[in-house]
Amino acid sequence: MKATILTIGNEILKGRTVNTNFSHIGHVLTFSGYEVYRGLVVRDDPSEIAWGITQAVAFSDLVVSSGGLGPTFDDMSVKAIADALGIPLETNADALRMIRNKYSAQNLELTPERMKMAMLPRNAEALANPVGTAPGVFFNYRGVNILILPGVPSEMKAILETMIPRIRNPSVHYYEESIILKGIMESTFAPVVADEMKKAGGNVYIKSHPSSAELANPVLEIEVSGTARDEASAINLVRSTLESIKKRYEKMLE
Amino acid sequence: MKATILTIGNEILKGRTVNTNFSHIGHVLTFSGYEVYRGLVVRDDPSEIAWGITQAVAFSDLVVSSGGLGPTFDDMSVKAIADALGIPLETNADALRMIRNKYSAQNLELTPERMKMAMLPRNAEALANPVGTAPGVFFNYRGVNILILPGVPSEMKAILETMIPRIRNPSVHYYEESIILKGIMESTFAPVVADEMKKAGGNVYIKSHPSSAELANPVLEIEVSGTARDEASAINLVRSTLESIKKRYEKMLE
Repeated sequence: MKATILTIGNEILKGRTVNTNFSHIGHVLTFSGYEVYRGLVVRDDPSEIAWGITQAVAFSDLVVSSGGLGPTFDDMSVKAIADALGIPLETNADALRMIRNKYSAQNLELTPERMKMAMLPRNAEALANPVGTAPGVFFNYRGVNILILPGVPSEMKAILETMIPRIRNPSVHYYEESIILKGIMESTFAPVVADEMKKAGGNVYIKSHPSSAELANPVLEIEVSGTARDEASAINLVRSTLESIKKRYEKMLE
Repeated sequence: MKATILTIGNEILKGRTVNTNFSHIGHVLTFSGYEVYRGLVVRDDPSEIAWGITQAVAFSDLVVSSGGLGPTFDDMSVKAIADALGIPLETNADALRMIRNKYSAQNLELTPERMKMAMLPRNAEALANPVGTAPGVFFNYRGVNILILPGVPSEMKAILETMIPRIRNPSVHYYEESIILKGIMESTFAPVVADEMKKAGGNVYIKSHPSSAELANPVLEIEVSGTARDEASAINLVRSTLESIKKRYEKMLE
């Protein structure tokens, strides 16, 4: 199953904020049995958000967005996504209750800016935000699950956590493990990586990450990942490839 | 002028690696007078890289990619980008010299994996990599500048640094500055932000970043950014808006 991560926010594009939401979501989805296929980062602009969601739904089973859920003028993700998909917005009773409870606990009124956070696509589900105020949003569009999360990392993580059991792909288990090889250059080890990939017949993926300069004192991290129908098989697959790589590395150093 | 950042690498999509290259490139391009318009993250797969570069050249003045420049089988960025744009690959004499010098200094042969790094699009320029071995690549495709950088951050930064004077947009100067407002909620301050944006008539952009929970003890960062034809005007524009925001905040607390 394919997933796309859609990040909404000028601050990411300008490099003001490092997109740690992206890596967190990517990690969670990978370990939930998804192939994270593409990532799209778009501006706080309805037509750009429309471009992103339209691209994403075209080839994904799941789209997870983050950013643009708050009360300010540039928090426009929910409306822009709904408009792009042709779904009308309505006041969502659950969302309104969640938001009202948050503000009334502080004796605060529901201003138009705050009410905006309760306008969700028709038939969408409001997801409780245990950390902040804007509820997450979940709905299905023509077979694609769409999960809209806030940009504040603690809020995004808290809502995503609650959704893992519901989005998990039960038929795919992912496992990865790495080893560090010292004193060997990526270019020297490249044929071994290619050969081990071929041997495993497409079931494992091997990637080498040079963590220092290729030339003097090379340090190479070899990451092996694989998927299988159950966890034990995935672990077994990855570890047997790692064993083989280790032996070939030791032989090369002799 | 519009720029797109294209990130190539499964490790980013899987969330194994945080995309700090993206934020570095975004920051450099913003302060070089570009509007960083979109970010695309794609897998180590020729057809995905082709999708990314095709999307990017369609609306950008500059495309900067990172990742996939090394000697391993999954380092396929240069060939995939060239193929997608219909440009033949050729052995680049400068690139070959750079690579040969690096390896011969260590008494190492030019294996096919190492030679691959010298195959560049016809008429492209090889950019010296002062940190690693794979040269960067720079060329113009139908009016779009394309800069292909390695994924190892130190190598990417070193090559990008040398290119700043050549890609700089001289007619746009960007400036940004932030203030921290304590004890005010994002939703309470939202109308002020909207009004100040309107007052500045599209010349400044104001974004509020709630750095703690919206409700109890709110801390709000207000970021004001603007562009102008020269640096002094950009600074002036941003600072006068910040002054006005500060006054309104102080009034609200009275």
